[in-house]
Amino acid sequence: MTFIKNLKASWDKKNSLVCVGLDTDLEKIPEHLKTHEKAAFEFNKTIIDATVDFASSFKFQYAMYAGSDTIDQLKESINYVKQNYPDMPVILDAKRNDIGNTAKMYAKQAFEILSADAVTVNPYMGGDTLEPFTDYKDKGVIVLCRTSNPGAKDLQDLEVEGKKIYQIVAEKVANEWNKNKNLLVVVGATYPKELKEIRKIIGDMPILLPGIGAQGGDVKAVMDNGKDSNGQGLIVHSARGIIYAGSDEKFAENAAEKAKKLRDEINKYR
Amino acid sequence: MTFIKNLKASWDKKNSLVCVGLDTDLEKIPEHLKTHEKAAFEFNKTIIDATVDFASSFKFQYAMYAGSDTIDQLKESINYVKQNYPDMPVILDAKRNDIGNTAKMYAKQAFEILSADAVTVNPYMGGDTLEPFTDYKDKGVIVLCRTSNPGAKDLQDLEVEGKKIYQIVAEKVANEWNKNKNLLVVVGATYPKELKEIRKIIGDMPILLPGIGAQGGDVKAVMDNGKDSNGQGLIVHSARGIIYAGSDEKFAENAAEKAKKLRDEINKYR
Repeated sequence: MTFIKNLKASWDKKNSLVCVGLDTDLEKIPEHLKTHEKAAFEFNKTIIDATVDFASSFKFQYAMYAGSDTIDQLKESINYVKQNYPDMPVILDAKRNDIGNTAKMYAKQAFEILSADAVTVNPYMGGDTLEPFTDYKDKGVIVLCRTSNPGAKDLQDLEVEGKKIYQIVAEKVANEWNKNKNLLVVVGATYPKELKEIRKIIGDMPILLPGIGAQGGDVKAVMDNGKDSNGQGLIVHSARGIIYAGSDEKFAENAAEKAKKLRDEINKYR
Repeated sequence: MTFIKNLKASWDKKNSLVCVGLDTDLEKIPEHLKTHEKAAFEFNKTIIDATVDFASSFKFQYAMYAGSDTIDQLKESINYVKQNYPDMPVILDAKRNDIGNTAKMYAKQAFEILSADAVTVNPYMGGDTLEPFTDYKDKGVIVLCRTSNPGAKDLQDLEVEGKKIYQIVAEKVANEWNKNKNLLVVVGATYPKELKEIRKIIGDMPILLPGIGAQGGDVKAVMDNGKDSNGQGLIVHSARGIIYAGSDEKFAENAAEKAKKLRDEINKYR
């Protein structure tokens, strides 16, 4: 089964568009876990078990593990999902980009070493740099289009003959780079107008949507502007708003409540 | 001492603009090293010792270590340079990019965990995403401008009011994003015309120049079009053309010869 088919099946089965972000920051996890030898993995296991019923995918932020020297625990955490919830799609958020023979090694890390089902990539270097990823036909390759940060405007909003760069990226993703039908895009939840324009360009292609919650994205606005023709089409990502909901022994229970609440709020507007 | 000052001192001291690329691919190293428990580290140590006299910097390609699950050996290799050749600038080529609080973790990995002196970054997400890196004032932050691959044209050559995207990136790097004076740019050696335009925009800012050798970049053309007002200004990167020059016990000797030859060829046109 391809990543996109599996993702759609998961949306249906779980009746949820929520993607729980395991952006695990060792400084923010509950005190009683901090001294654990594998603190990131222990925290992740508990959050995964607590939120899996309310989520349709998990996303792991590579930077958090790279910056705390715990890439081995990232690998263990993804394996934990694969072993216990084999139907749950797992996205690696690593925003990779490099020339062909080098990008191959990033694809190998994401799909073979870390066992992710999809990976985020940056389009600045061009279509040929995405091929080593899309060559894995059953995997998903999620291209940055319009990001959620204020500086996104610096390059992404520049206009070329009446079209903004992010619109051109969306067109290339939809029409030119998608030979193996395994591309998706990233659009920040903080920019609903841009989200609407991109949805028009890409049809029913799924969109990874970070920026709900901590970054200020509004659920109604993103659903109104971003959902596909089936009232789905969005991987609504929330990390900080869910995983750090509690700071004591009840942190997992609190995270589950937040995930359920987000699922229900999204479903109101589908 | 800042990265850029140290780099310039190294250019002078070594009378060399060569940057040896430790893009170590375990499939391409000599047979007799392949069975070594730490094959990448052993290979790197030998290449570093053999080429250090002819080079003014080393660059490590993160992808090669990520894709072969040897990030620990990347760390050891950089430490080996730091301990034995403390004046040699070390660049981590990881093409990082993410929103602020996440990018901080990438900066931490590059500068604190891996002890690199500079890191490559991708500008697509905008100026605010570079700040967590440039906040390390003594470190170098090397921004992708015009890359060496054929697909570079897909986005980088698009024209906005008469200026190409890579020219706009060069302008922002030179005039807008460089508050801590620790930015540099990446320009592919395969595009001398673009190199010339970028040199005009950025003045004497150093340029990391991959693409000499295996990718087809011509030394005379890049020197004529890229050198700064002092006949320097270029970090002329070569990996495959140097480190895989030999496949038997004499591989280090062969690598040294190639590094020396490149140094001398570059110096003809300074």
